[in-house]
Amino acid sequence: MLSVALAHWPCLDKHGNVIATAITNLDLHDGARVCLTYGINTLYIVHPYRSQRDFAAKIMDHWLTGFGGEYNPLRKQAFEVVRIVEDLAALRAQGAPTVVATSARRVRNAISWAELVSLAGRSDVCLLFGTGWGLAPQALAQADAVVEPIAGRGDFNHLPVRAAMAIAIDRVLGGNTWDT
Amino acid sequence: MLSVALAHWPCLDKHGNVIATAITNLDLHDGARVCLTYGINTLYIVHPYRSQRDFAAKIMDHWLTGFGGEYNPLRKQAFEVVRIVEDLAALRAQGAPTVVATSARRVRNAISWAELVSLAGRSDVCLLFGTGWGLAPQALAQADAVVEPIAGRGDFNHLPVRAAMAIAIDRVLGGNTWDT
Repeated sequence: MLSVALAHWPCLDKHGNVIATAITNLDLHDGARVCLTYGINTLYIVHPYRSQRDFAAKIMDHWLTGFGGEYNPLRKQAFEVVRIVEDLAALRAQGAPTVVATSARRVRNAISWAELVSLAGRSDVCLLFGTGWGLAPQALAQADAVVEPIAGRGDFNHLPVRAAMAIAIDRVLGGNTWDT
Repeated sequence: MLSVALAHWPCLDKHGNVIATAITNLDLHDGARVCLTYGINTLYIVHPYRSQRDFAAKIMDHWLTGFGGEYNPLRKQAFEVVRIVEDLAALRAQGAPTVVATSARRVRNAISWAELVSLAGRSDVCLLFGTGWGLAPQALAQADAVVEPIAGRGDFNHLPVRAAMAIAIDRVLGGNTWDT
C-alpha cells in the first residue's frame, strides 16, 4: 500500500536556507485528487505551525462538511484522504511505514524507480515530497530511502511539486514497467 | 518531437455543456515547467477570447521581460516555451503536426500509451489537453487520434489537468516502457 506525504518543513528556499513554506490551497486539491485517482487512501500534509494546520483544516472543512461538498461532491470525496500532521515524527506515529523521500538532486545510494515499484509492491511505503526548493538534508536523513530524481531531458529540473507528485505516483502505480 | 496544447475551448462543464474556460495562472506555470523539464519546446495555450489571450500574455510578460524574470530566471526560461493561439485551426497553422487528444472518458478506437510512445518516436505529435471537465466531442473529432485515459485504480477519475499533463508527458518521454 502506498501513502503520500507533502512536507512544508524542513524544506529549502532558493538560497539553500532551511525554511517552513506556506500551505497552498491548490497543492491540497491536486494532491488529494491524484491520490484518490490511484487508490491511495492517505495524503499527509506536514506542517509545524498550528496556524497553517488550522488553515488547511479550514479549507478541508469547506469541502468535507460545508457548501463545497454539496457543490462538488468529487472534491469532498478527494479530501477524505487528507490527514494533517505536525512533523515527520508524527507521520511515523500515525503509522507511516517505510518512508521514501524524493529529491530533484542526485543523492548517494538513491534507489531506482524500478526498486521503488518493487518495494511498494511488497511493503507499505510512504512517499515523501518537499515544497519550496525541496526537502532539506535533515528531512532526507530521516527517510529510510531516497528515490532517484525524476529525470527529464536536459538541464532544467524544476518540476512543480504538484507535477512531481503526479508523475511519481503514476510511476509506482500506473502500470508501466521499468527495466531493472 | 512532442509538443503540448492546453485548450480552453471547446471544453465541457460538469453538466456536459460546451464552454470556454478561464485561463489559470498556475496552469501556465506548471505546464511550462513540466514541458521544459522534458525538453518540450512548445506549449500552446488555446483560447478563443482576445481578453483571455491578453491576460495570458500579461502574465508571461511579467516573467519574460518584467521583474519576474529577474526575481526567478527559471520561470523566465520556462515561459519561453509558451505560445498563445486562438483555436485548434490556428494550432495547425502554427505547424502543429499530428494532434493526439487526451480524454478521461473511454473513446472508441483510442490508441494505447504504447502506441503513442511509438508514434511520438517516429513523428511530430502535439498532445492536446482540455480544461474544465475535459475536451468537448467536437475537439476530439478534430484530433487525428485520441489516447486511452490515464487509468488509475478504482472509479474516481478526476485528475487535475495539471496532473494529467505531467503524467502524460512522463509516460511518453520519461523513459519507462510499456507492454505493447
